[in-house]
Amino acid sequence: MRIGIIGGTGPQGRGLAARLGAAGIEALVGSRELDRARETVERLRAPSIHAGTNDDVVERCDVVFLAVPFAGAGDLVERYRGRFRQGSVVVDMTVPLVFDAGVPSLVDVREGSAAEHLRTRLAPEVRLAAALKTIPAAVLGRLDAALDCDEFVCGDSPDARAAVMDILGRIPALRPIDAGGLDAARTLERMTLLAVEINKRHRIRGARYRVIGL
Amino acid sequence: MRIGIIGGTGPQGRGLAARLGAAGIEALVGSRELDRARETVERLRAPSIHAGTNDDVVERCDVVFLAVPFAGAGDLVERYRGRFRQGSVVVDMTVPLVFDAGVPSLVDVREGSAAEHLRTRLAPEVRLAAALKTIPAAVLGRLDAALDCDEFVCGDSPDARAAVMDILGRIPALRPIDAGGLDAARTLERMTLLAVEINKRHRIRGARYRVIGL
Repeated sequence: MRIGIIGGTGPQGRGLAARLGAAGIEALVGSRELDRARETVERLRAPSIHAGTNDDVVERCDVVFLAVPFAGAGDLVERYRGRFRQGSVVVDMTVPLVFDAGVPSLVDVREGSAAEHLRTRLAPEVRLAAALKTIPAAVLGRLDAALDCDEFVCGDSPDARAAVMDILGRIPALRPIDAGGLDAARTLERMTLLAVEINKRHRIRGARYRVIGL
Repeated sequence: MRIGIIGGTGPQGRGLAARLGAAGIEALVGSRELDRARETVERLRAPSIHAGTNDDVVERCDVVFLAVPFAGAGDLVERYRGRFRQGSVVVDMTVPLVFDAGVPSLVDVREGSAAEHLRTRLAPEVRLAAALKTIPAAVLGRLDAALDCDEFVCGDSPDARAAVMDILGRIPALRPIDAGGLDAARTLERMTLLAVEINKRHRIRGARYRVIGL
């Protein structure tokens, strides 16, 4: 099962690549420009992480993390319609968060969440999960700080969720939690907004969640 | 500052009363029928917890926890319109959760959340906070189990939030977190739904949250 990251040179993508690399998990970091991907991969110094284009990721990987801003994500997956591998799983990491004069809010997405919006733009044979929405990029990318938290995985099928949970479960100090169907993304995206609010109010950068009682 | 609980004989209300009593905090447990309130208070065996009617709570208390089911909460606060004490804070604990053949979902509340719905039905001079939405009644009521979690407090004013956070902060092993304006209840109510889903999937009863990084 080959793992890749579309938008792997952005903050979330770099952070995920760093964590996968530290866990020795093979992954392909994609970017629109191969040179940018190479630059990111060189800085990571992790032998299991390789550079490619976004096209490479789509054509070669079975689990494709989507680490681009929400604003462009729908068009991007539509552009790749029909080009994802048979049976592949796309993992939506986007949050429709916007800032107006420093005040964060969520874009009103007609389908209820970014994940459900992307579902409508992907071909039916591609499965969709959502994960890593609630972990700040700043925390993901700092390998000297333990993640020490849970990550919620939802998706349109148990198989898609299981594939993603299996990968995330290999990252130290991160416990993946099955959050159920894709509509749980409505909750997860709001939880990111809440974490941003908590960060602001407490002048911190890394608010994230853990489930107690499990 | 007198503290009271409307619907103090239901599962959430009893749980809150138990925690307040264990912390030695004076509170008035209200019920429609005084006898039921007395019965609940007798069982708690906490000298700081007293029994009254819901009317007593409204007329005597400065911080009024609303521990009734969401379905009746709007009518209830409207019935008490003009009767809450000057400057009092109502604390919405409701979640618009329904089960259809065992499948949980949230009622679509036009205002966005139960808390914002109640805001429209309260007189403007009464302040409204929301709290204790994400802690399961089963956990709240079991004094032999540490809460060991955070509780999110949002509200229509910093004063309302501060009053509630001050009270909850005196309950052992519970850390109140300022979640901002009343619209954060949209997130908190969804987080309850997520916790219920996690409970179901993992056959547990007490899923609740902690913020890491704070």
